[in-house]
Amino acid sequence: MEQERLILVTNDDGVEAKGLKSLVEIVREFGKVVVVAPEESQSGMSHAITTKFPLRVRTVKKEEGLEIYSCSGTPVDCVKLALHQLLGRKPDMLVSGINHGSNASVSIVYSGTMAAAIEGSINKINSIGFSLVDHSAEADFDAAGVYVRRIVDKVFMNGMWNGTCLNVNIPAGKENELKGIIVCRQTDGYWQEEFEKRIDPSNREYYWLTGYFSNSEPLAEDTDEWALQNKFVSVVPIQTDFTSYARVKELKKWGF
Amino acid sequence: MEQERLILVTNDDGVEAKGLKSLVEIVREFGKVVVVAPEESQSGMSHAITTKFPLRVRTVKKEEGLEIYSCSGTPVDCVKLALHQLLGRKPDMLVSGINHGSNASVSIVYSGTMAAAIEGSINKINSIGFSLVDHSAEADFDAAGVYVRRIVDKVFMNGMWNGTCLNVNIPAGKENELKGIIVCRQTDGYWQEEFEKRIDPSNREYYWLTGYFSNSEPLAEDTDEWALQNKFVSVVPIQTDFTSYARVKELKKWGF
Repeated sequence: MEQERLILVTNDDGVEAKGLKSLVEIVREFGKVVVVAPEESQSGMSHAITTKFPLRVRTVKKEEGLEIYSCSGTPVDCVKLALHQLLGRKPDMLVSGINHGSNASVSIVYSGTMAAAIEGSINKINSIGFSLVDHSAEADFDAAGVYVRRIVDKVFMNGMWNGTCLNVNIPAGKENELKGIIVCRQTDGYWQEEFEKRIDPSNREYYWLTGYFSNSEPLAEDTDEWALQNKFVSVVPIQTDFTSYARVKELKKWGF
Repeated sequence: MEQERLILVTNDDGVEAKGLKSLVEIVREFGKVVVVAPEESQSGMSHAITTKFPLRVRTVKKEEGLEIYSCSGTPVDCVKLALHQLLGRKPDMLVSGINHGSNASVSIVYSGTMAAAIEGSINKINSIGFSLVDHSAEADFDAAGVYVRRIVDKVFMNGMWNGTCLNVNIPAGKENELKGIIVCRQTDGYWQEEFEKRIDPSNREYYWLTGYFSNSEPLAEDTDEWALQNKFVSVVPIQTDFTSYARVKELKKWGF
């Protein structure tokens, strides 16, 4: 008899986030689910790991087919703890999200949701990060769920490639407003930063980081930002090898 | 008259680190230097940004050709604050390091040093991250300095490409032990994690994250780990576009 599938779920919005709960409900249809998610929001933590402080784990729930743990650390800490302490065996899939807010284009670099998926693929696990383009805590994940189910199913059918995970972004909207799935590339963009300078009650300056996304290129039809603006779900395969092979050739001509 | 070059320096070991001071001494030969570095060690913070807490900046030193600021946040916070608040104009180069410890292979993913360089290249600045394969606070950076100077000079001569930065790792050792520079690729590897479980005085469990690097492939001569083990300085061009173009083609065949 085939072993039941084991699916690891994490996120960066924290164990109580609505997007996580929506994701759990869908992937439970595919096998046994273990959630290891941050105790609190870890948005913007990227691939950070915690080495200065010890990590704590809390058992939130244990029921038939579903275990939920929270961890005091980052999303990547959650993945590492799950793989090396909590799961007992290598999971058949890692899903991260559903993030409240887009992780398209360069936002992937700052994203804890996507870092967790990348950590999964570094560990040779089929890994997918899901994000909904809606920051609201009360965002509607119903239409997103339809696409999550379809994509998880395809990944179980085809298997992922070592060193590759998927960055899936889903536009906000009702199911009949979404137009389908486009496989595309990361848009070239950056965050236009602004700092808000304030003065504290002790008369000392401090700064709040704010900003908004800007694309650095016109939105071609093969980019994730184009897909999202046109109500398509974007699927971008992400590699954990960051080498620019084109530039290796060029650099060799520099004659170091 | 040509404008004096402006060079932004940061790191993840903190403003007091010996590796930072070594780097500053070398790049001062090339122009005006502004350091914006974390107040304390931010090792393992990857591309994390601080949005939950305000950021504070402290002026450490201002002298002819050199300004040093420390920031309460992460390396990427330092870069953002420098570019958008402290520098006044876009710098001609960003250098990060010299890190105490290797950032070769998959360590780039966790590295604050390399995240700062990647943030520079997202902002279209010539950016280089330097690391010495020696974790010690008292590491000897003399031989490293020779290679830092040579590589900075080459980058000023040739210019970097948009969306690419350099990950430079330098073996420990005296100058006559190092064999030169190899342009190479990121080794496929992962951190073999171990968690040390302990019990605190209140009888609650906690975990310390530990581990060691393992390569997932035999060390070919075109990999950074091979270069370092053979006493060569490794130079890997890193791209900020994480799309796997080979997999875009494959995924399109899945028929979503």
